[in-house]
Amino acid sequence: MNTELHPLIQRIEPPFWFSGMHNPELQLLFYGNNIAQCQITIPNSSAITNVKRTENPNFIFVTIDTQKIAANEIDFIFKQKDKTTFIQKYELRTRRKGASLRKSFDSSDTIYLLMPDRFANGNKNNDNDKFTTEKYNRDLPGGRHGGDIEGIIQHLDYIHSLGITTIWSTPLCEDNDAEYSYHGYGQSDVYKIDPRYGTNEDYTRLASEIHQRDMKLVMDYVTNHWGLQHWMVKDLPTADWIHQFENYTETNHKRSTISDPNASEIDRNTCIKGWFVPSMPDLNIVNPLVFNYLVQNAIWWIEYANLDGLRIDTYNYSEPQYISKWTKAITNEYPDFNLVGEITMRNQGLLSYWQKDSPIGKIQNFNSNLPSVMDFALLDAFQILFDEDDGSWDRGVTRVYDIIARDFLFPNANNLLIFAENHDSKRFNQIYNNDIRKYKMAMCMLATLRGIPQLYYGSEIGMSGDQHLGDADIRKDFPGGWEDDENNAFNPETRSECQNAYFDFTSKLFHWRKTNDAVHFGKTTHYIPEHNVYVYFRYNLLKSVMVIINNNPENQEISTLRFKENIGDYKTGKDVLTNEMYNLENAIVIEGKSALILELE
Amino acid sequence: MNTELHPLIQRIEPPFWFSGMHNPELQLLFYGNNIAQCQITIPNSSAITNVKRTENPNFIFVTIDTQKIAANEIDFIFKQKDKTTFIQKYELRTRRKGASLRKSFDSSDTIYLLMPDRFANGNKNNDNDKFTTEKYNRDLPGGRHGGDIEGIIQHLDYIHSLGITTIWSTPLCEDNDAEYSYHGYGQSDVYKIDPRYGTNEDYTRLASEIHQRDMKLVMDYVTNHWGLQHWMVKDLPTADWIHQFENYTETNHKRSTISDPNASEIDRNTCIKGWFVPSMPDLNIVNPLVFNYLVQNAIWWIEYANLDGLRIDTYNYSEPQYISKWTKAITNEYPDFNLVGEITMRNQGLLSYWQKDSPIGKIQNFNSNLPSVMDFALLDAFQILFDEDDGSWDRGVTRVYDIIARDFLFPNANNLLIFAENHDSKRFNQIYNNDIRKYKMAMCMLATLRGIPQLYYGSEIGMSGDQHLGDADIRKDFPGGWEDDENNAFNPETRSECQNAYFDFTSKLFHWRKTNDAVHFGKTTHYIPEHNVYVYFRYNLLKSVMVIINNNPENQEISTLRFKENIGDYKTGKDVLTNEMYNLENAIVIEGKSALILELE
Repeated sequence: MNTELHPLIQRIEPPFWFSGMHNPELQLLFYGNNIAQCQITIPNSSAITNVKRTENPNFIFVTIDTQKIAANEIDFIFKQKDKTTFIQKYELRTRRKGASLRKSFDSSDTIYLLMPDRFANGNKNNDNDKFTTEKYNRDLPGGRHGGDIEGIIQHLDYIHSLGITTIWSTPLCEDNDAEYSYHGYGQSDVYKIDPRYGTNEDYTRLASEIHQRDMKLVMDYVTNHWGLQHWMVKDLPTADWIHQFENYTETNHKRSTISDPNASEIDRNTCIKGWFVPSMPDLNIVNPLVFNYLVQNAIWWIEYANLDGLRIDTYNYSEPQYISKWTKAITNEYPDFNLVGEITMRNQGLLSYWQKDSPIGKIQNFNSNLPSVMDFALLDAFQILFDEDDGSWDRGVTRVYDIIARDFLFPNANNLLIFAENHDSKRFNQIYNNDIRKYKMAMCMLATLRGIPQLYYGSEIGMSGDQHLGDADIRKDFPGGWEDDENNAFNPETRSECQNAYFDFTSKLFHWRKTNDAVHFGKTTHYIPEHNVYVYFRYNLLKSVMVIINNNPENQEISTLRFKENIGDYKTGKDVLTNEMYNLENAIVIEGKSALILELE
Repeated sequence: MNTELHPLIQRIEPPFWFSGMHNPELQLLFYGNNIAQCQITIPNSSAITNVKRTENPNFIFVTIDTQKIAANEIDFIFKQKDKTTFIQKYELRTRRKGASLRKSFDSSDTIYLLMPDRFANGNKNNDNDKFTTEKYNRDLPGGRHGGDIEGIIQHLDYIHSLGITTIWSTPLCEDNDAEYSYHGYGQSDVYKIDPRYGTNEDYTRLASEIHQRDMKLVMDYVTNHWGLQHWMVKDLPTADWIHQFENYTETNHKRSTISDPNASEIDRNTCIKGWFVPSMPDLNIVNPLVFNYLVQNAIWWIEYANLDGLRIDTYNYSEPQYISKWTKAITNEYPDFNLVGEITMRNQGLLSYWQKDSPIGKIQNFNSNLPSVMDFALLDAFQILFDEDDGSWDRGVTRVYDIIARDFLFPNANNLLIFAENHDSKRFNQIYNNDIRKYKMAMCMLATLRGIPQLYYGSEIGMSGDQHLGDADIRKDFPGGWEDDENNAFNPETRSECQNAYFDFTSKLFHWRKTNDAVHFGKTTHYIPEHNVYVYFRYNLLKSVMVIINNNPENQEISTLRFKENIGDYKTGKDVLTNEMYNLENAIVIEGKSALILELE
């Protein structure tokens, strides 16, 4: 795929670039033994705006102004100390039409989060790879199980049939840790798909197959750290490429220090500069070389793989001013692009702080530029409320009511990612002992509350797993993803009755969700829960949806009088799952522990 | 005290007024049988700017421009239907010098909250009163116990000896409910001290005695409701003077509806207009007559009794725009005046919403104008953390750390009222089983954290009481306040050893607090708690105080290296309670469950 490298050059990054970007500057990294001793020129020498050597002679960073390059190829002329020269070609590709103004994911989408190693093994030939250390071992819970891009591609129709519109896969770039590498967050080469998942071309094919089904692809991007095996960590361009300490120093995880004027400097520094875990060196995004490297790497993937969005890992473990600038650099290139950041904070004021144009951030003249934030406040509520049968002051469905009541703290609550679980949380079905009634209530809320719903692979066929047994237990293999699996849950015929009950409900619900823009972009009116019953409406000028969540174990009779400001002239409500009609002039009886979504007519 | 009333006039309110107020307009209420049939004039008739009759002929509201009144007395000429006239004199008093620019309470103060019925019975002659219904019954926990203003005055030296600078008494105006009237929040006459507490003159004498001791007096003011026995409720000037419903409607207490754009109208209305309890009719402050009445009543007390501040009950149960306007009207008269509002919310974002110039309020172009808010977030932490021996992620002292870390949400965190208990909460000593170590830790934090510390009567001598037994149990009589009390805790000689231990510690601590302006107005730097030990500094250019709270049951050795950014060139720390000196170059050993306050030298 990449330009052929001269023998004296081991790497060029980015391996190629694109003409006509909004930011015409391109910082090229040339890596080779003692490469810094070379003088570099190109035919139009004024296009080189900066040449930067570091304390490591194996690196040279060359900045060019791509506006001054007419051709699709650049000849870099390397003149060595001994006056001999060689040429290294570099490619500038043509962008896809409309690449800059690409649409992205938003609240009309439903996201499916999967872990590629655990989803489906579509290609047994890449289970092991000569150049990566950790080998296939499906018997080891935290080992590599062989799932791959081919496996995802083979089951795109399955995902599509669930009513999903967007896929978020955890990282696919190479993670060459010797063990526990399957999660992919300790990357060793951020320009290369891990060979055990496939090739870069496989990844672009995945994107293309997804787009053919009118779905979208979100890449999981890690700005805060790489893996210890990253080639550049093993031969650092500069000592301050990563945060280094006399003794190993871990982050204190207190991200509140960032916005806290009372925080001590040492705490704030340790939060930002400390390492996430010993195997993940913490990147110093303040270093302009690192900053540009990370900006270009993300843009390269968006452009190369034709991505529809990014999910940013551990967003606020980086220096806040610089991670914000990084995000701005991405949205400068793609003004309509959505990025959702992992902000594992529970306080909505602090969560809001990290969303673009936040009034809370503004208190400190801070703007994180991040369009979307993961709603961990709602996650916490979802993971506890359905077992709270009593509807007291702040428990049960009132947990969600209270969260929605504070939505005004966010600049854009409808661009929050909402979820009942993910790859780092407890499994929903485990918490609730596979009580499908509770699953249905949660899904109905995800499908109708403000925000962008995100499902987690496997729960749609009733999968569970116990986080107390280790993260691997919440990241089990999807049944049917491996040739020899006894149970194949991808297929209605081979799913168990129970699996089909989960799947059919989920599929019906999220297919319906696609059709109703009132739940995508409509307003919300909600009512204080009574007897653990939460009633809310999503509506726009043309449509109105009434949602009733009965978290009380008993049937409840709901008088509609209280809701007249929302019911207005509507006469009937159609259950979107059963088509049953409800006369809105009568009380509505709803079963214990159930949800009802009515389209008003 | 008041001007003599003509026999046809039963009441004039305010009973007198003051010349030279910032707002020259005065709305006078004349009440008498069929008084509205009269025509009213005064010699300088242009000074009457408005005469308002309502549907109730017993009321007439006359607005005058006091700037146009030169004399100290106004002759109101009442011309009746039969053409006969009579004259009603009205007094305009001269203000005290500096009345407008009076100082108020602030974070240099320590407040003592007491309930007058339960503090001391200084005058047995007023235990019962001919015109009020509920009679003395000290055997009834929720009955009237006979405490009074004279009892407070007799023990001002005691309060002063505790290191207190400001007294907040729960309401003293007449509450003529037939039972459970001792708390005083269901007032029946807001221009009159309850005769069982004393007279209006006794109240001004209380203020004067307090001021002679260089202390301050804060009045508990209720804007949201009166009692059912209020004379005006029994003969309403207008039907909309209070909020009325077809059937009794109680507030839903969901004050989040006020700021929640997703809230339904019915919920927001019920919150604001519903009654607090069946015996407390909810005032409609939107009615301009009510609004002016409440503004003038508060100003009258400030001016008449020479008050130093107000505590506003149930602040955000009133229409937000109007309660804010009410507060502004008070601070327009007294620009340096402090008012602290009872905002019983736990979320700091929502608490901040209600403080003057809040960035959170600003999201909705709302400014409550309220300078000070009660810090219920901190209260909740104080009522649980000292029993949490483990120092895990969000428990123990980290609860307080996390609260201080979010202080930037407030426009002025240093003007929050901070407290470990009050008359509506659990008693601190009850929660912690009279473990004096925990009491000492809490007091040390109250004395040194940002904000205005507030103590609750009796805890300083170890009083407890169980809220589960009813509110009366957390509002027991102060021992020694009644002649026949076996134990007199007002007096060091008659206090038990245990009571003296509590008292002496508290007195020493809060006397010290008076002397150190770094804890009044200084900056804060705090450190992430480790092993359940919280270290923070309060400092200004001249002084620095180091506070160590060891909530771990074991002794801890604290290396001072981590705090060098605050310790700087200071060499030693003096324990403010024992004068023991600590060398800051060495580690500091601190006992389990204890606090250490060091002045750095």
